[in-house]
Amino acid sequence: MATGDIGLIGLAVMGQNLILNMNDKGFNVVAYNRTTSKVDHFLANEAKGTNVQGAHSIEELVSKLKRPRKIILLVKAGQAVDDFIKQLEPHLEPGDIIIDGGNSHYPDSIRRTKELESKGLLFVGTGVSGGEEGARYGPSLMPGGSTAAWPAIKEIFQKTAAQVNGEPCCDWVGETGSGHYVKMVHNGIEYGDMQLIAEAYDILKRGLGLDDDEISNIFTSWNKGVLDSFLIEITANILKFKDDDGEPVVNKILDKAGQKGTGKWTAIAALDAGTPVTLIGEAVFARCLSAIKEERVRASTAIAGPQKEAFRGDKQLFIDDLEQALYASKIISYTQGFMLMRETAKESVFLGDITSAYKKNPALESLLFDDFFNKAVHKAQPGWRRIVAQAVLWGIPTPAFSTALAFFDGYRSEILPANLLQAQRDYFGAHTFRVQIGKENERFKAGEDIHVNWTGRGGNVSASTYNT
Amino acid sequence: MATGDIGLIGLAVMGQNLILNMNDKGFNVVAYNRTTSKVDHFLANEAKGTNVQGAHSIEELVSKLKRPRKIILLVKAGQAVDDFIKQLEPHLEPGDIIIDGGNSHYPDSIRRTKELESKGLLFVGTGVSGGEEGARYGPSLMPGGSTAAWPAIKEIFQKTAAQVNGEPCCDWVGETGSGHYVKMVHNGIEYGDMQLIAEAYDILKRGLGLDDDEISNIFTSWNKGVLDSFLIEITANILKFKDDDGEPVVNKILDKAGQKGTGKWTAIAALDAGTPVTLIGEAVFARCLSAIKEERVRASTAIAGPQKEAFRGDKQLFIDDLEQALYASKIISYTQGFMLMRETAKESVFLGDITSAYKKNPALESLLFDDFFNKAVHKAQPGWRRIVAQAVLWGIPTPAFSTALAFFDGYRSEILPANLLQAQRDYFGAHTFRVQIGKENERFKAGEDIHVNWTGRGGNVSASTYNT
Repeated sequence: MATGDIGLIGLAVMGQNLILNMNDKGFNVVAYNRTTSKVDHFLANEAKGTNVQGAHSIEELVSKLKRPRKIILLVKAGQAVDDFIKQLEPHLEPGDIIIDGGNSHYPDSIRRTKELESKGLLFVGTGVSGGEEGARYGPSLMPGGSTAAWPAIKEIFQKTAAQVNGEPCCDWVGETGSGHYVKMVHNGIEYGDMQLIAEAYDILKRGLGLDDDEISNIFTSWNKGVLDSFLIEITANILKFKDDDGEPVVNKILDKAGQKGTGKWTAIAALDAGTPVTLIGEAVFARCLSAIKEERVRASTAIAGPQKEAFRGDKQLFIDDLEQALYASKIISYTQGFMLMRETAKESVFLGDITSAYKKNPALESLLFDDFFNKAVHKAQPGWRRIVAQAVLWGIPTPAFSTALAFFDGYRSEILPANLLQAQRDYFGAHTFRVQIGKENERFKAGEDIHVNWTGRGGNVSASTYNT
Repeated sequence: MATGDIGLIGLAVMGQNLILNMNDKGFNVVAYNRTTSKVDHFLANEAKGTNVQGAHSIEELVSKLKRPRKIILLVKAGQAVDDFIKQLEPHLEPGDIIIDGGNSHYPDSIRRTKELESKGLLFVGTGVSGGEEGARYGPSLMPGGSTAAWPAIKEIFQKTAAQVNGEPCCDWVGETGSGHYVKMVHNGIEYGDMQLIAEAYDILKRGLGLDDDEISNIFTSWNKGVLDSFLIEITANILKFKDDDGEPVVNKILDKAGQKGTGKWTAIAALDAGTPVTLIGEAVFARCLSAIKEERVRASTAIAGPQKEAFRGDKQLFIDDLEQALYASKIISYTQGFMLMRETAKESVFLGDITSAYKKNPALESLLFDDFFNKAVHKAQPGWRRIVAQAVLWGIPTPAFSTALAFFDGYRSEILPANLLQAQRDYFGAHTFRVQIGKENERFKAGEDIHVNWTGRGGNVSASTYNT
């Protein structure tokens, strides 16, 4: 007699924690792992005293599940997902649901949905956000794929997810790869948030010369204000976490950032969509630059920075400016992330104020047109500029703060110098241009691709005839 | 009796000019175009009085060429190239050479080299740089592909190319897609250069409040100094080019920048290679931002910038600072471009000082370690910082200047705040970290992936066991 509500494959940290979380919420979970000794170890330790069942083969796992069967994979993205799907298929029946909870790239989820649906099975690719802690106590879940699967998994998903103001952090995102797409952008935004926090930390450390305890206290106080968030909270915790010798552990960590790929994928998706998601781009590149540590060490002796001058202003005012710079830059990052989702999916699922902004006005073009965020960036603006200018003079790199401000100033520019770019492109490549609104005349007509013979030599052949 | 040295397909501006250029250098060119009336028009007009022959079919084109036949395509990148290759193939013999001089994406050139070589034919994908003017009077050529083709085309290529200090701006780049790869990076760098010039123009216009004639004069004077280059020269020409009513044409051009894709491809190649080519990334995104003109116009009324204050300093000193900012940022952009080529191809062809730097020390890790450029950035540094700080306070967007400076400051940082990023990643995702050099102890060992139980709750399972 099958009693399992859901099966889970993959007993690494995320899988184990998600099982314990679902068990706490009253679901009967069947756990399986390729190395089956891990199943026994898990049942005898972390899952001891719970209702979690173990399985030692795919067949046993499937046999213990109620229909339609729901099996969630928490394995390494890529080939491992396809391998498990292939192993599962012969044991499943029409209507059964395979769920991929890993960090899969969304084109793979699009492909898998189609393949499994063509065989009568259902597929869900779901983002799982919140890390170890989230998985254990309530993640944000972003499921998408076979829409027919949603009614069957809705209760498990929404009860397992984090609850904010009585609402589950989980709703159906949309078809095929949309769950993993939204998760990808979400992770990309996290790259931006982390880079901004890192820059703030660097400014406090190298600029103001504060120690880790002082910086931790600043993050703790920020966490009570507009910056209140998981990443600010853990940053405060990290900075005060000491090694046995009393030195903060963070100071013992090598400054080479790793990455799993979702930030890069988001940046590429942005380039492909033609959407200026500059914060994520800079955050990814900042990690790349951190990774060439040996070259940086050599450069640090070959290249001198500006003369370091001690800070003479009011430290608390500077710290308040920095809080505003971080807040405004974060709003820009979310603005860019939403622009990307607007351009690609025209649908999104998100949290907190951002959701409110969009619920209030679903046709909202940009977060910056929302009253709340519009006021916030106006308030932040003077401090934000002072911080970026000071960092530039100090020689402390702020790629994310700077690009956020550049985007902000570009976005609110009625006229950008792209008219010169277009002139250059027409000059050297006859790429043509359009006339500026309000400047139309006999020679420059609205809606026409215009070429000018800038040199008197190049001829009047334009590149719009660049086909044979 | 075949008398043609080379055939050319595609009589748009680049094709026509390249034909006239090769004719001037003493080569007999056979011209063909799908719409054959263009052949007649070309022979009766631009090519009148030259030795250029026309062809009205692929068969006729091939029949007029000496062996091994060399046929260069200057058609739209993509399907059109494959279509013409397919049409040519049945008429060619082993050893004949098809050359693609369009803006093809390098993976296509890799594929085409392999396909044609498998049929006994040779393929060359060549970058052609310098636009209309370059094509007509001497382009920079970057050929790569079937190495066996090089001896047969070397003379035509090197004589047709621009000559600088008696050296042709053309040498064999390498195998398969390397010609188009180098051209792609070259074009990407051009995106960066153009964006930097656009930002300088914007600062002079909106910051100092200068008019186009004044700005043109500044570019003219810059063209006599360290910035001497084609793009600076044409910018000076563009800014003084007037419409019939006396208004500069540049002011009548719509500020929405177009793009053909090579900048985007370079940025994606950089993301894939993990190389921080931030200037090209920002330049591409700046064009994307310029393209959403209607949204910007609305934002310009919804979002206020900083109070505009008139410039009170010494204008000439500021302009000199700007020249240095532009120069230093350009050096950073080239540094990044070379880092990308270093990471991917380990071979490159370039011009001027850059070539010298690499000839002096082919193992040179970075342009910034070269004496000449090292001195240049040191000299430029104070002005560069003043310009970026001032633009930030003025609210004039400088994404490229800013990212160049952020890269410079990051590159010369022995320690970056990526240690905090790694701590965060380990905290929320158990992604592990490495120990900082010199901080090793019993708990934190060199060369080990270390996980810390930051919260006392998350368990000691690290993500390195995140596979089943």
